[in-house]
Amino acid sequence: MTVAVHLPLAEKTDWWVKVLQERLPGWTVESMSAVAKPEDVSYAVVWRPRTGDMARFPNLKAIVSIGAGIDHVLADEQLPLGVPIIRTVGADLTQRMREYVALHVLRHHRDMPRQLRAQAERDWHAIVVPVAPNRTVGVMGLGNLGAAAATTVAGLGFSARGWSRSAKTIPGVDTYAGADQFDSFLAGCDILVNLLPLTDRTAGVLNAELFARLPAGACIINCARGPHLVDDDLLAALDSGHIKQATLDVFHQEPLPADHPFWGHPAITVTPHVASQIDPLTGAGLIAANLKTFEETGTCEDLADAARGY
Amino acid sequence: MTVAVHLPLAEKTDWWVKVLQERLPGWTVESMSAVAKPEDVSYAVVWRPRTGDMARFPNLKAIVSIGAGIDHVLADEQLPLGVPIIRTVGADLTQRMREYVALHVLRHHRDMPRQLRAQAERDWHAIVVPVAPNRTVGVMGLGNLGAAAATTVAGLGFSARGWSRSAKTIPGVDTYAGADQFDSFLAGCDILVNLLPLTDRTAGVLNAELFARLPAGACIINCARGPHLVDDDLLAALDSGHIKQATLDVFHQEPLPADHPFWGHPAITVTPHVASQIDPLTGAGLIAANLKTFEETGTCEDLADAARGY
Repeated sequence: MTVAVHLPLAEKTDWWVKVLQERLPGWTVESMSAVAKPEDVSYAVVWRPRTGDMARFPNLKAIVSIGAGIDHVLADEQLPLGVPIIRTVGADLTQRMREYVALHVLRHHRDMPRQLRAQAERDWHAIVVPVAPNRTVGVMGLGNLGAAAATTVAGLGFSARGWSRSAKTIPGVDTYAGADQFDSFLAGCDILVNLLPLTDRTAGVLNAELFARLPAGACIINCARGPHLVDDDLLAALDSGHIKQATLDVFHQEPLPADHPFWGHPAITVTPHVASQIDPLTGAGLIAANLKTFEETGTCEDLADAARGY
Repeated sequence: MTVAVHLPLAEKTDWWVKVLQERLPGWTVESMSAVAKPEDVSYAVVWRPRTGDMARFPNLKAIVSIGAGIDHVLADEQLPLGVPIIRTVGADLTQRMREYVALHVLRHHRDMPRQLRAQAERDWHAIVVPVAPNRTVGVMGLGNLGAAAATTVAGLGFSARGWSRSAKTIPGVDTYAGADQFDSFLAGCDILVNLLPLTDRTAGVLNAELFARLPAGACIINCARGPHLVDDDLLAALDSGHIKQATLDVFHQEPLPADHPFWGHPAITVTPHVASQIDPLTGAGLIAANLKTFEETGTCEDLADAARGY
């Protein structure tokens, strides 16, 4: 059984080849660029594969995304149709996203950016904020990560609501579904967290029209994908003051270019796509387990739906 | 029934007189400095009363602290003995402390200070941190606020432990009690949160000896009282690198003097005693309810124990 591994950085590819080989005794794990017989490759384990990479392997049984999203796989215009895609979603990934969302919701809630500026000025100034039950936090996207994020903010005492394409029930969270309920969902969100999958339907969803439907002074947290956001619309909404602050973990181009206006904007916190950064050793264990299960049974729990896009 | 109100700022005193009077129809609520007949005063509602203030009232039935702590009342050397002290502890106060502890534990956990420096340098640099279950957060003091804080960090996925003078049981939290278990409690705390009451026994507890018992790289959050901390010991422990970062909400002198080294220290976050800042309208409701209950029954749930000091 041959597994071909590709990540954009060669040193990262080498690391993944090594740790997957340790966890898959009896299999052959190699770097995609070192594959001599493409017809032997049964599985591809990838992060941001290049166009045409997958089409080289005529006997591919499945593609594994090193992460929860599969948009970086679907971006390949020559992707062979019908090859199953396995996501990497583990307790570790969900836990890290819960931490990220809790941290940044609380930072905006208690206005830490202003508090840190006050410290720099040695200003003993109490910033009065409402208590969490009087703040509404809305989560867009109620998959594994979104549902966990909404439950976490509810557990911290916030008034929590969530929106998804199809109806979901989550204890402690007011849920809204479909296009019909989108505006009423947005109308109450003091802090909006985006955890939608990236699809043709969701690209550009964080735009001027959406911002206008949020209450004045709302904050935005985007920890899904860069193309969800229309960058210029956010800058305009921050400049007008209608949106107060934003925390962004994902960007159209990553790394975020050094001359991008987000880096130095006083109302924007930039983090380098680390919200739910996979712990590599945990991830390697999850991927090896999924490959073994798929090889034995022809399926596995973490199978994505390429038609839906997630 | 006459209630005398005192806070250090006259304008705050006037505000509390007004809102308490609205909530206590039929009672007389006045500023302590305006009291004409001290013998008529049955209740004092205070924050940081001056020495001898309480001794002026021969018929005092109870003293109300506008806050959870009573150390600021006990600091009065002429305090009449045996007058009951009522604390102000409400769901709102506890909720705000939960938010503060969750926010700052997460900030240290995900190393936001370093992340913000990286943003300032436009440095796309992933800071790798352990996942929360691999971090131990310890809470010293397991009263209302400490127990809620420990439960909250456990709910966020951290490995949570707590220490108190007498044994407590809190679901999801490893509890330690008494002097015998203090060192083993400290030995595992990656992030230490102080929520002890301030008494003769606990003053100066955050000192060089305690810091040395924490693991290297530990972070400190003090949201109890300034005199718990030996300022110079913290500065030395930060300079040595043994303690990585600290967040301080309380100080020996408040407001923190403009020339204090904490303000500009790169490893210290200063907040102006706002961790569990009472929402004044909620607080006024709690105080009025406690006064009515005490007047009717001679006691109330939020009675402090002056002998213990909290």
